[in-house]
Amino acid sequence: MSNFVQKERAETTVNIDKLNAFLDPDHERTQNIFKEIINDPILTTPRNYYDLTKPQLRELSAKKIARLSRYVETEDFEEFEERSTLLAIADPAVITRIGINLNLFCNAIKGNGTDEQIKYWLFERGTMQLRDIYGCFAMTEMAHGSNVAALETTATYNPERQTFKINTPELRATKWWIGGAAHSANYAVVYARLISKGKDYGVKIFVVQLRDPNHELVQGVTIGDIGTKMGRDAIDNGWIQFHNVEVPREFMLQRYTKIDPDGTVHLTPLEQISYSALIQGRVAMTMDSFRQGARFITIALRYAVGRQQFGKPGQENQIINYALHQHRLLPYLSLVYLLGPGSQKLVIDYRQILKDLHDGKNLKKSIADLKDLFVNSASLKATNTWLISQLIDEARQACGGHGYHAYSGLGRAFNDWSVQQTWEGDNNVLSINAGRSIIKYYEAGQKGKKLGEDFEYLKQKFDSNLKFDDDRSLVDIWSLVIIKVAQHALSIYNGDWESVSQERLLLSKFHSNRYLTETFYKRLTKSSDLGSKEKETLKTLFKLYTYYFIDKFAGTFLQFDILDASRLTHIQAETKKLFNELRPNLIGLTDAFKYPDEIINSSLGNFNGDFYNNYFQDVVQNYGKGDKAPYIDVLTDVLKRPSLDELSSFSKTKKTLEKLGDDI
Amino acid sequence: MSNFVQKERAETTVNIDKLNAFLDPDHERTQNIFKEIINDPILTTPRNYYDLTKPQLRELSAKKIARLSRYVETEDFEEFEERSTLLAIADPAVITRIGINLNLFCNAIKGNGTDEQIKYWLFERGTMQLRDIYGCFAMTEMAHGSNVAALETTATYNPERQTFKINTPELRATKWWIGGAAHSANYAVVYARLISKGKDYGVKIFVVQLRDPNHELVQGVTIGDIGTKMGRDAIDNGWIQFHNVEVPREFMLQRYTKIDPDGTVHLTPLEQISYSALIQGRVAMTMDSFRQGARFITIALRYAVGRQQFGKPGQENQIINYALHQHRLLPYLSLVYLLGPGSQKLVIDYRQILKDLHDGKNLKKSIADLKDLFVNSASLKATNTWLISQLIDEARQACGGHGYHAYSGLGRAFNDWSVQQTWEGDNNVLSINAGRSIIKYYEAGQKGKKLGEDFEYLKQKFDSNLKFDDDRSLVDIWSLVIIKVAQHALSIYNGDWESVSQERLLLSKFHSNRYLTETFYKRLTKSSDLGSKEKETLKTLFKLYTYYFIDKFAGTFLQFDILDASRLTHIQAETKKLFNELRPNLIGLTDAFKYPDEIINSSLGNFNGDFYNNYFQDVVQNYGKGDKAPYIDVLTDVLKRPSLDELSSFSKTKKTLEKLGDDI
Repeated sequence: MSNFVQKERAETTVNIDKLNAFLDPDHERTQNIFKEIINDPILTTPRNYYDLTKPQLRELSAKKIARLSRYVETEDFEEFEERSTLLAIADPAVITRIGINLNLFCNAIKGNGTDEQIKYWLFERGTMQLRDIYGCFAMTEMAHGSNVAALETTATYNPERQTFKINTPELRATKWWIGGAAHSANYAVVYARLISKGKDYGVKIFVVQLRDPNHELVQGVTIGDIGTKMGRDAIDNGWIQFHNVEVPREFMLQRYTKIDPDGTVHLTPLEQISYSALIQGRVAMTMDSFRQGARFITIALRYAVGRQQFGKPGQENQIINYALHQHRLLPYLSLVYLLGPGSQKLVIDYRQILKDLHDGKNLKKSIADLKDLFVNSASLKATNTWLISQLIDEARQACGGHGYHAYSGLGRAFNDWSVQQTWEGDNNVLSINAGRSIIKYYEAGQKGKKLGEDFEYLKQKFDSNLKFDDDRSLVDIWSLVIIKVAQHALSIYNGDWESVSQERLLLSKFHSNRYLTETFYKRLTKSSDLGSKEKETLKTLFKLYTYYFIDKFAGTFLQFDILDASRLTHIQAETKKLFNELRPNLIGLTDAFKYPDEIINSSLGNFNGDFYNNYFQDVVQNYGKGDKAPYIDVLTDVLKRPSLDELSSFSKTKKTLEKLGDDI
Repeated sequence: MSNFVQKERAETTVNIDKLNAFLDPDHERTQNIFKEIINDPILTTPRNYYDLTKPQLRELSAKKIARLSRYVETEDFEEFEERSTLLAIADPAVITRIGINLNLFCNAIKGNGTDEQIKYWLFERGTMQLRDIYGCFAMTEMAHGSNVAALETTATYNPERQTFKINTPELRATKWWIGGAAHSANYAVVYARLISKGKDYGVKIFVVQLRDPNHELVQGVTIGDIGTKMGRDAIDNGWIQFHNVEVPREFMLQRYTKIDPDGTVHLTPLEQISYSALIQGRVAMTMDSFRQGARFITIALRYAVGRQQFGKPGQENQIINYALHQHRLLPYLSLVYLLGPGSQKLVIDYRQILKDLHDGKNLKKSIADLKDLFVNSASLKATNTWLISQLIDEARQACGGHGYHAYSGLGRAFNDWSVQQTWEGDNNVLSINAGRSIIKYYEAGQKGKKLGEDFEYLKQKFDSNLKFDDDRSLVDIWSLVIIKVAQHALSIYNGDWESVSQERLLLSKFHSNRYLTETFYKRLTKSSDLGSKEKETLKTLFKLYTYYFIDKFAGTFLQFDILDASRLTHIQAETKKLFNELRPNLIGLTDAFKYPDEIINSSLGNFNGDFYNNYFQDVVQNYGKGDKAPYIDVLTDVLKRPSLDELSSFSKTKKTLEKLGDDI
């Protein structure tokens, strides 16, 4: 007898190739890369990956990096990035470790170095091909993360020697969390305060050697291992202190700010674009949200279709048939589907804007685009890394006890994922920054100013009663609620942005919702390769997404009179119908991600749906049968221990006490 | 210069001794036990606990159990339980491991065994003193957790030999997740289907030996290690398969169902109380929610008071001064405060009801009380283990990057905590069961039936407009919303409880809110030892709790017309004022938990507030300085590798190809 997963797969009514092509325009390349990864004995991720200790993980990730060095010099960088993203689905830490060098280190130089500096550090030295230099990104300090402008490391210029001295003035200025510093990196881009002629010019970027060709620390550099983390232990994060480390004037990145040999500093109004190095990470994390979300919702849904509990003996109900279980998982399925087109648009826009900036043809427009990209990427990164964290947690709970097993993949997933909420922009900080920009854009729009394409909606006019009579309204309702919340924020704003931080947070979340619905709607409308069944199913997901989030934020929708109670009750009832529409194709909808078993890497989530057998075999293969614990004597000694009296020393036994008591 | 934590401590305006006594009526015993734990070199938990591998954790927990065996025979069991609960704050897994034997195994026997069986297994054999027998609780199977009645292991009675044969009929019936089975246990209570004379009498409980006195597996028992988990790796969970394992008739627990030597089975209507063994865990998890919540909110608030970011250079703002940061953490502080009295009431009620049941004087009332206890403990366990999970996650995020370090304690905390949502009753299943009971109770109340004390509120009558003019109304509003949701659920109920599962989930959450506010309100009203400042502050926390959750569930409150939009806006504005009222005493309010540093075990959460120094010292002490990675050659070989041409085999070099091409 085939199992439920196989049975429902056979009965799927949507074409999964078409859905896959809709979700992933590069689907052929994706499948090729997947094959290359899983056929490579070093790059593929075995089940017992979840058992590896920190030293083992670090060694393995170094080996994977060595392996990837073969690809980095034979394919173009965009393709290599795609390979990295796909490899990161099963092993996110290794890609972080390589990305510290190829993205953070190199992007800091690309974004802030002169053409010569870029040429020298990235290409002549071989960094971009993982040769000679392994760079790290020494920005964060112990006491400063989000507030980069307040970093305390100093780079003091000496015109006589034409060098800077890099120093860590106090403990709190120790560079901290620096990925790659503990073991891998021999160079760093160091964010430090430029001091020249006694004046502090704020934080600039310096290329600093950390280790010599024998990988020994250079003079004045002290480095330690940060140690164990919540997740991603394959990354060798470290701390760095500098004691009079000397670097030549030419090692300061000088695309914008320049320093003359005599120490005269030339600042530039273009400084703001120097932080663009961090955007790449935010864009990548939005794409990660799609990729990882697809992985984990697949595990939970395959398990939910296959697992039975309660109901008639021998014919127990599949847990996915329970209303609550559908309510727990299907909205996340819709989220993942919407994240596909949305994250792809963000990547495309990012690449175009960075290219335009570099070309420098219309710098004013490029800078405006960059600002919009800041807002979009902040809102999307924060909102969706939070949501995927919830998805993973819900997926784990939805797999019951088995979800707590390492081989479900969901525990490690949560640990590895959690850092996304914090690094390269803390989610709360990003959200309220994005929210503030949205309020300002709204104000500017009201004053008739032109807004960027992704924010034009802030000028939209709505009837007092928005009709829910077409699909487009599922995008518009987000525009409307954003406008209402922005209006409300302005009405209670007391001159201090602190007074509206709750509203800013909401606006950032709603903007992400709007961005995803808008992008999905456009692709769906344009897409000509889909059959009617696929189109209908994608529309159901699209509808579910907005219905679910309306219900989740029902307080706001009712408070601002966008819905009334009866409309909300109607939406709640309709949501259940959407679940029913999707129910027959849940296996098809997850198969459409086309992730091989090795990429999903979960005993519960294999394609064959035969999870009890898979899981048992994995457990027995890796943990054996009937072994005694090495420390078993500790326990058996307890169980066999003598009585309390016998355990006491002789001088306390009853007999002794009687003897001693004879003449007392 | 003292740091901010010390400064604010000095300026605290509440008396922390009084607050501590309010929160913990047994505070003197608590402090004594804390001292005993942290002074014991085995029982105390060092900072590098977070670095231990699974084998190390398991050995350490065995040693702690050996150490605790000294206490278990010299103090009464309630005191020992209190000791365990307090030890579990810093090291939850070890207490689970010991509780498998002392609670699950022993409670199954206490709840289902005859007086002779209880006497023999628990006392004569020494189990309750950790002697001779180490029991485990073999209920869950691979394919069945929540649905105990559908377990598939069989116990087939043979009247000739007067024995049962225990069998695992197929893979899916393998006992799974059995804590203690992999290494520790030599006995198990096995939940299996009683088959006698060809008839299946459903699931009963059997005492089964697993290992002989030399700790070798007995014939027919196969056991394996479950392996790595998301957390609590110190517990040796295992799987068990039985192949014709023979146990005597007398080893079936026969307080209720009995079996004669000839195989005649006598069932009893009292069967329902046989699952009371599981309630203890739910009650304990509510208490854990309080204990662990206090630990983690202390870390986050001390860090939030001490950490500065943004604002004027040199005088950056403490992060706790940001409105959003207060909004993220202070509601959880109020939750922890409310959980104190609430969880204590639940423990007291539990002990009383179990005692009454055992005395058997008024069995009808005891059974009704037990049913109420099921509902209360299900609602409180599910709601609060979810909330504490969110608290831990928020606390981690609120500590920024440092929260992701193992030594924050928050990552491990999340992993260890997560299982609480699943074991001893999956939170979703418990919630909808509690919700169904609440709807039924409401219906019964409407028909004039008597309800238990904790559910009498379901008969309360309300004016159409509830006034918020006194503290009592902060309890009543929960009664009102529960009644409204129950009414709504009945109005849409279509004969299938599935149709109202969302409403049942909500009712369970709201009942927990009501229970906690009611209990807190009562203790606050009765408490005579508090000064006016403490009383005022506790009232602010009480108010914050309800205001926060009203806002969180605003959709429901507006949908059912309990509030209108302007009232909601007012509550949101008032909430900010409550934050301001609490702000000066945040250090005092966390100090009032009186947890020693060794119990909190976080580099960020020490009493002295000097977290940069504490953290740096902890990291350097445990991870050293300047060490090269053992695998460093893997990386340096990559960086120093020859060019692609050189790397290729000789036969592919340009020169060779030219030569080969000479005559092609």
